[in-house]
Amino acid sequence: MSQYRVLIDANDEKGLVHKVSSVFYEHEMNILSNSEFVDKENNKFFMRSVVDGDIDALKLSGFLQELLPKSASVRVIEPKKKNIIIMATKEMHALGDILIRHEAGELEANILAVISNYNDLESLVSKFDIPYICISHDGLNRSEHESKIIECINSYENVDYIVLAKYMRILTPRFVETYEDKIINIHHSFLPAFIGANPYKQAYDRGVKIIGATAHFVNNNLDEGPIIAQEVIHVDHAYGWRDMQRSGRDVEKVVLSRALKLALEDRIFVYANKTVIF
Amino acid sequence: MSQYRVLIDANDEKGLVHKVSSVFYEHEMNILSNSEFVDKENNKFFMRSVVDGDIDALKLSGFLQELLPKSASVRVIEPKKKNIIIMATKEMHALGDILIRHEAGELEANILAVISNYNDLESLVSKFDIPYICISHDGLNRSEHESKIIECINSYENVDYIVLAKYMRILTPRFVETYEDKIINIHHSFLPAFIGANPYKQAYDRGVKIIGATAHFVNNNLDEGPIIAQEVIHVDHAYGWRDMQRSGRDVEKVVLSRALKLALEDRIFVYANKTVIF
Amino acid sequence: MSQYRVLIDANDEKGLVHKVSSVFYEHEMNILSNSEFVDKENNKFFMRSVVDGDIDALKLSGFLQELLPKSASVRVIEPKKKNIIIMATKEMHALGDILIRHEAGELEANILAVISNYNDLESLVSKFDIPYICISHDGLNRSEHESKIIECINSYENVDYIVLAKYMRILTPRFVETYEDKIINIHHSFLPAFIGANPYKQAYDRGVKIIGATAHFVNNNLDEGPIIAQEVIHVDHAYGWRDMQRSGRDVEKVVLSRALKLALEDRIFVYANKTVIF
Amino acid sequence: MSQYRVLIDANDEKGLVHKVSSVFYEHEMNILSNSEFVDKENNKFFMRSVVDGDIDALKLSGFLQELLPKSASVRVIEPKKKNIIIMATKEMHALGDILIRHEAGELEANILAVISNYNDLESLVSKFDIPYICISHDGLNRSEHESKIIECINSYENVDYIVLAKYMRILTPRFVETYEDKIINIHHSFLPAFIGANPYKQAYDRGVKIIGATAHFVNNNLDEGPIIAQEVIHVDHAYGWRDMQRSGRDVEKVVLSRALKLALEDRIFVYANKTVIF
Repeated sequence: MSQYRVLIDANDEKGLVHKVSSVFYEHEMNILSNSEFVDKENNKFFMRSVVDGDIDALKLSGFLQELLPKSASVRVIEPKKKNIIIMATKEMHALGDILIRHEAGELEANILAVISNYNDLESLVSKFDIPYICISHDGLNRSEHESKIIECINSYENVDYIVLAKYMRILTPRFVETYEDKIINIHHSFLPAFIGANPYKQAYDRGVKIIGATAHFVNNNLDEGPIIAQEVIHVDHAYGWRDMQRSGRDVEKVVLSRALKLALEDRIFVYANKTVIF
Repeated sequence: MSQYRVLIDANDEKGLVHKVSSVFYEHEMNILSNSEFVDKENNKFFMRSVVDGDIDALKLSGFLQELLPKSASVRVIEPKKKNIIIMATKEMHALGDILIRHEAGELEANILAVISNYNDLESLVSKFDIPYICISHDGLNRSEHESKIIECINSYENVDYIVLAKYMRILTPRFVETYEDKIINIHHSFLPAFIGANPYKQAYDRGVKIIGATAHFVNNNLDEGPIIAQEVIHVDHAYGWRDMQRSGRDVEKVVLSRALKLALEDRIFVYANKTVIF
Repeated sequence: MSQYRVLIDANDEKGLVHKVSSVFYEHEMNILSNSEFVDKENNKFFMRSVVDGDIDALKLSGFLQELLPKSASVRVIEPKKKNIIIMATKEMHALGDILIRHEAGELEANILAVISNYNDLESLVSKFDIPYICISHDGLNRSEHESKIIECINSYENVDYIVLAKYMRILTPRFVETYEDKIINIHHSFLPAFIGANPYKQAYDRGVKIIGATAHFVNNNLDEGPIIAQEVIHVDHAYGWRDMQRSGRDVEKVVLSRALKLALEDRIFVYANKTVIF
Repeated sequence: MSQYRVLIDANDEKGLVHKVSSVFYEHEMNILSNSEFVDKENNKFFMRSVVDGDIDALKLSGFLQELLPKSASVRVIEPKKKNIIIMATKEMHALGDILIRHEAGELEANILAVISNYNDLESLVSKFDIPYICISHDGLNRSEHESKIIECINSYENVDYIVLAKYMRILTPRFVETYEDKIINIHHSFLPAFIGANPYKQAYDRGVKIIGATAHFVNNNLDEGPIIAQEVIHVDHAYGWRDMQRSGRDVEKVVLSRALKLALEDRIFVYANKTVIF
């Protein structure tokens, strides 16, 4: 008996649920959970099922593809730990939260390495017997620096996600395209607000009463990729911008870990610069 | 073309989704939305579909019942305004919120009448051309008082829900059984906390930092029916119990209206003293 | 015995609290509550005290001004109902919430009138015996239209606040300056996000997971005045933009009523395009 | 120039603010922040000021005590790292969050040691060069076990707080009295709800739509000490009790760290089994 997560997206048409469920039924599979969504505006169908049964993953995928229209994308995924690489700069909170969850066995992930452009976090990361690779940008232009990072990432096999846990450098389109829909970022602001430098200072100057954080996939427009999760907290006039930053960090780490969990459990569909999350 | 909400619950077994979707498929119906849930512990299956097609409701129900196991309960509901009766005592906030939503056309409901044991709210209700029926409990025992209310309710046809918008008298088992799973109450506390009189005073004495409210169906155990919705707000030491009560009212009206909306849209299954909400 | 709200702001210097409290002490006044805040960056001091005692308001104000530095602004306010005028367009939710609170006696306010550029809301407002004045913009340019509104407002005496309960026309600088720090608006978005038309459509297109609303004073830059209160709710991919709008309305009315309450209780200081709220 | 946190509580009477501020003024101290609260019901006055000036702490305390009534308790505290001991059992999340914050320099605290009745957490704690002391309860009755823990705690000097980061054994009155108002606990439920064993199972069975956690000082009644902080998250029917537990952990760690921060910054007054928090 194997358990699979089956993720299907397709142009919507009548009978999709029927076809998918008929495959499960014919092969005597149990449906453990099932979620569907139809975006009427874009005429798109999304479905995620968790099933178990006595069938090979490839065969199951084949049966589904045979029955479904050509527009359909079918993924049959066996639940297992995914491989992630974390990129960070100097701040400890978001990285630390992931390390503790990893240590506690809460994450469906192997952390292959932590890459940083500084060595500030080496002491923390090395406690957990995880490789810490410092790739300084000193004396390198952005492209040269990224080439070294890409080389480092590519030295690992089967990297499923790259998690930017407060990695504070802007990525080039080349980098982003190399790992399309694989890079998860935590934005230190409540998108789409206060894009750019020191959002907490901007938020403070604006006198906001709420601050937030946004976890999203990274695409070519800085801070504009598909949003995975957002959260906020209330602040008041007594918060200076550093207080906002401090409180903001608590939101950031919560939101990034939540987004990472969703990704590791294969709960996210990306389309039209948005996400469907089951 | 008719639109239907199809609600099915059954003992779980393989093939239920397949069977339901095959009925939709054979009769060329569109699935507009679809939600399923399986409670493994109790081996129960729940499904709610919104579909449209060129078929009669009774026939659709018949086809589904024919194919599904005997344990299955099938409801095919045509979306239309439900009939509700509101019961209140003296407080205006929860009732007022429903009246305004009704006036704004936000509610899928006709308010048949407001029943109260006092006449304090008559002035408000009569503004909206809704019958206000004052049934005083003066000089009556609980059973006599309720008999008059039941008589009043029964003078209306097809009452779908009775909404207790801060009706402050305890209902007898007889009343509750008469309208099983049809009575929605807003509890002036965050269940299961502070059951009984003046929960805000209790909450204040306990020094809580959060207060909340709970909307639930009413069953024989006071304040213990299936929970539909809950919400909270933060308070601090500067809140006296009357401040908590005042803030609590804002939560109460929000939660009651949210629960009522879920009921009117046929999104709630009740079982095992709990709710499944799609 | 009279109760006063004493609001003081000044350039910060040593001894301000001491001076204020010495006036209260010498005149044997009770301090019922007391809040202070110092904005170090702008070197500004804010203080709000609720006191009672056997002294005339003018005299109390005089004693305080005598002792405090020249930069100090002193307001001694006797708690009583303030006069407000509500402006709306067609939507009922924010207006309705204020009307119900007014009817319930929850608001420290007299509603002098509701002004609208349409007559859609007349039926609702007239239920509550509040003047409804429809000033259509038909055939008028913005300036002419506003002149008629200003004329109408000025026909009332002692207007304390103008509440824009979803008034959907842009105000000119002339109008805003006429009622500086007196106009409270509810912005149908979570500022500073999605400024401009149909923010819910924008939010939907962006795939946000949270929507919110912002109550603020109006100044010359549209949607950019000092923020009083903000609130958010979570949404997901299943929300179309109309669903977001519907849920957004629930947030809007809560936030506007909260901001109005703060204003009516003289809890807000405005400075540097921000608010200090006690 | 020294900075002090001045905490005063007293029976309320006229002139308290005046007297305190006159001491600050006479000694040319700056008031950096100031909070007061009067509990009318209990006639209690609370004040917390952050001040700086060129004066000795003892002298400042003396001047204040001289001027204030005998009922007044005066504490003049120099901000510095407090000494804490953490007690845990097997769960990693709450402890891990504190360790990371400590490592990041976010906490105004030295962690003297972690004490546990199991050795499961030794591997984690030892990464951070913090003493891990396993005191097994095997073969000991409760009193014997606690005696060993008390002996261990007393081997450290100047322990300010004992943090129960999911320490799963009930403490005896003797232990609690030994460290009165010094023990901070995170309760794995939203007090006062679901007191006792496996609150998540109880919450699940009750079908709640919100779960929460409560940080509180420990007194003799289990789970009934003064509440410091509370937080909640929304759940739905799809959460089994283990899912609730998993999500609950995220709330627990947030709330415990928030409460600890408030204690370390001397922001909490305890009285009447409640807290005043500035």
